[in-house]
Amino acid sequence: MLKLIIVISLTILAGSNVFAASADERAQVAAETRQGLLKVVVSYFGPIVGMAREQIPYDEDLVAKNAAKISTLLPMIPDVFRRDTRGFDLETEALDDIWDNTDDFESKAATAAERAKDLAAAVADGQGAAMKAFGELGASCKACHDNYRQQN
Amino acid sequence: MLKLIIVISLTILAGSNVFAASADERAQVAAETRQGLLKVVVSYFGPIVGMAREQIPYDEDLVAKNAAKISTLLPMIPDVFRRDTRGFDLETEALDDIWDNTDDFESKAATAAERAKDLAAAVADGQGAAMKAFGELGASCKACHDNYRQQN
Repeated sequence: MLKLIIVISLTILAGSNVFAASADERAQVAAETRQGLLKVVVSYFGPIVGMAREQIPYDEDLVAKNAAKISTLLPMIPDVFRRDTRGFDLETEALDDIWDNTDDFESKAATAAERAKDLAAAVADGQGAAMKAFGELGASCKACHDNYRQQN
Repeated sequence: MLKLIIVISLTILAGSNVFAASADERAQVAAETRQGLLKVVVSYFGPIVGMAREQIPYDEDLVAKNAAKISTLLPMIPDVFRRDTRGFDLETEALDDIWDNTDDFESKAATAAERAKDLAAAVADGQGAAMKAFGELGASCKACHDNYRQQN
């Protein structure tokens, strides 16, 4: 059974570099994983921005659904940023301060996750309340980016 | 308020290409987003594989925690694969069959999500039960990969 599990697992993980041998490879995987998480967050964020910009119609079900997904994704930030990649040669916008101030970084991520939950709840109070809550979620994202993400 | 939201949102999304203008760019963003989701899944999967391979000690709390995270991520598969990227020039292992057989693809993803929940629950019954449930989760991943992912 154990052999079967290993064979299946290796098939699944083929090419995924999860057992990356070198420290450089592990750092690269870590960077791609955290960028991956944030790309998924952005994919749920995008339609709500489109609504705020009045490019697409307000859809309360979609706002609630996407906010709920975002609220489950943001608590994964501490996990995917756990590997300290300071000093590695990576294509990354992650600043070293993340690992200098881990508690603050994780606290800001937790606040953003709470704001996403608030947004999911605010939908019941109408579009105005939802857009206000969305603004607060956005501000909580920005608070983290301002400190821990390279400014372009 | 609305202007503030938009300014904040654009700051957050800067460089993320969520408002990608061309169909090619949107397809590229879609491919990166779905690859991103699966990289996060793999990051939670990896330590459990390490335990199955006896490279790291069995840790029932970590298995339960990671299985729970995987069970919240896998239901996002239909969302991130919604954009049909058949015919685009992309670095992707996603086969066209995903969009030819969407119901089957999504059903296989749903099964895998259920197996992840089963794994989280099986931890309470001990390491043997957890590893058996992990094998079943792995088989459900493989069932999808065998049909919908390019074989290397």
